[in-house]
Amino acid sequence: MIVARDAASLRGAVGGWKAAGQRVALVPTMGYLHEGHLALVHRARQLAPRVVATIFVNPTQFAPHEDLGRYPRDEAGDAAKLEAAGCDLLFAPPVEAVYPPGFSTAITMRGPAEDLEGVHRPQMFGGVALVCTRLFGLTGADVAVFGEKDWQQVMVVRQAVSDLALPISIETVPTVRAEDGLALSSRNAYLKPEERRVALALHAALARAAERLRGGATAAEATAQAERELLEAGFRQVDYVALRRESDFAPMERAGEPGRLLAAAWLGQVRLIDNLPL
Amino acid sequence: MIVARDAASLRGAVGGWKAAGQRVALVPTMGYLHEGHLALVHRARQLAPRVVATIFVNPTQFAPHEDLGRYPRDEAGDAAKLEAAGCDLLFAPPVEAVYPPGFSTAITMRGPAEDLEGVHRPQMFGGVALVCTRLFGLTGADVAVFGEKDWQQVMVVRQAVSDLALPISIETVPTVRAEDGLALSSRNAYLKPEERRVALALHAALARAAERLRGGATAAEATAQAERELLEAGFRQVDYVALRRESDFAPMERAGEPGRLLAAAWLGQVRLIDNLPL
Repeated sequence: MIVARDAASLRGAVGGWKAAGQRVALVPTMGYLHEGHLALVHRARQLAPRVVATIFVNPTQFAPHEDLGRYPRDEAGDAAKLEAAGCDLLFAPPVEAVYPPGFSTAITMRGPAEDLEGVHRPQMFGGVALVCTRLFGLTGADVAVFGEKDWQQVMVVRQAVSDLALPISIETVPTVRAEDGLALSSRNAYLKPEERRVALALHAALARAAERLRGGATAAEATAQAERELLEAGFRQVDYVALRRESDFAPMERAGEPGRLLAAAWLGQVRLIDNLPL
Repeated sequence: MIVARDAASLRGAVGGWKAAGQRVALVPTMGYLHEGHLALVHRARQLAPRVVATIFVNPTQFAPHEDLGRYPRDEAGDAAKLEAAGCDLLFAPPVEAVYPPGFSTAITMRGPAEDLEGVHRPQMFGGVALVCTRLFGLTGADVAVFGEKDWQQVMVVRQAVSDLALPISIETVPTVRAEDGLALSSRNAYLKPEERRVALALHAALARAAERLRGGATAAEATAQAERELLEAGFRQVDYVALRRESDFAPMERAGEPGRLLAAAWLGQVRLIDNLPL
């Protein structure tokens, strides 16, 4: 596996593959990889003969009070996992290779990006759209693979790709979960053992809310009940539990069209998100 | 010459050329074409076997009080000129084909984009970067050709292409001028006959300032003198006369490194811009 740390060596390697007519699939990550990330690599290998993964903890999607500085990192472990999974190239740049001196461009996302996560992390989706646009361009990838765990992020990235007419397609992979249902996340590393036991309530509450919605409950009833269950289980604060239409992220009042149940909640100092299809 | 009005038919035509290995050069314009635009088309024909021109008066680069509604238009005349100049495809979309319902992405440009034109038209360069990014993507062009008349715009577009790692290169063509030196501009159509006679003072004042700078004057002296000359000639207001370094648009105190003398001034209700290399 090639390891590239600047745009020139990245382009050199990928340029050779593209010149030989080989399609390139990209797996953008912030590192500290788990089985969920590796499922993206496996999907990427099905989509293209060449797979590029990126590890970059993107500062433009963090607010000053957020966990940029303490975000978990393990590049040596990540590289070993990626190579074993069949990744051809790891792009692990320093910040100045992604945002060089004189960098002047910012992106703002409106619409679905202003809802849910966008309310609680208003800086995030513009930063995600910016770094994805740049990584798509630097890698020249034909397709990028994202996890459904970050469902709203996938919607926003698809919107940015459509709006900016970027020459790339977006594929998704279902959320990978622990045996008890907890969605795999690099941020799970922050959880203390007793918090880890409480954390499974997030998936469980969403699953019960989905059952209630299928049984005829309104979204208002089902999400209020899920919020109560999360607080009773030991979550400190619930940012949202919400039902949104898959096509355009519009609120839904009850089950019907394809939808997603989404939640974000705090367990001590750790903010967890999850979602389920409905 | 093919005329396309939506993204699908544009992509259909260009896709065939790209599949046949033919490079595509793009000339983005707001229409009401003059010899300056046609010089861009001629340059584009040297750069690629296929030339696409776009005519789109982009609303996201106009402020509410500006001249979006009265911007001059003559699509039939433009199409005839483009076809005679050897353009292969004209993309002349309605606004909703460029910004369809649900469009959610905005771009903000900092750095050089916040200087000079950016001070007086703060919405403009973000809108320019957005529409260029989208038109680059929709056309799949390999190279785009811009006029040096809009020198600061060229710098900002180059910055956006670099920052977003867009797969396109930018070429420029020197400003085309009338016999008396007035830079050709679609907005010259706004000038009354007596204003048209005064307008030549813009190029003349810049040319004299360049002479003074070459003779050892400071930028402060030369630009102040040029501002006085413009007001004496009959310009109503001078937005700026300024000397900037070509490499990074930094202010220069006197001649030395490659620079540009730039000016914007009002003649009645018409705002004219021009620039000269130094």
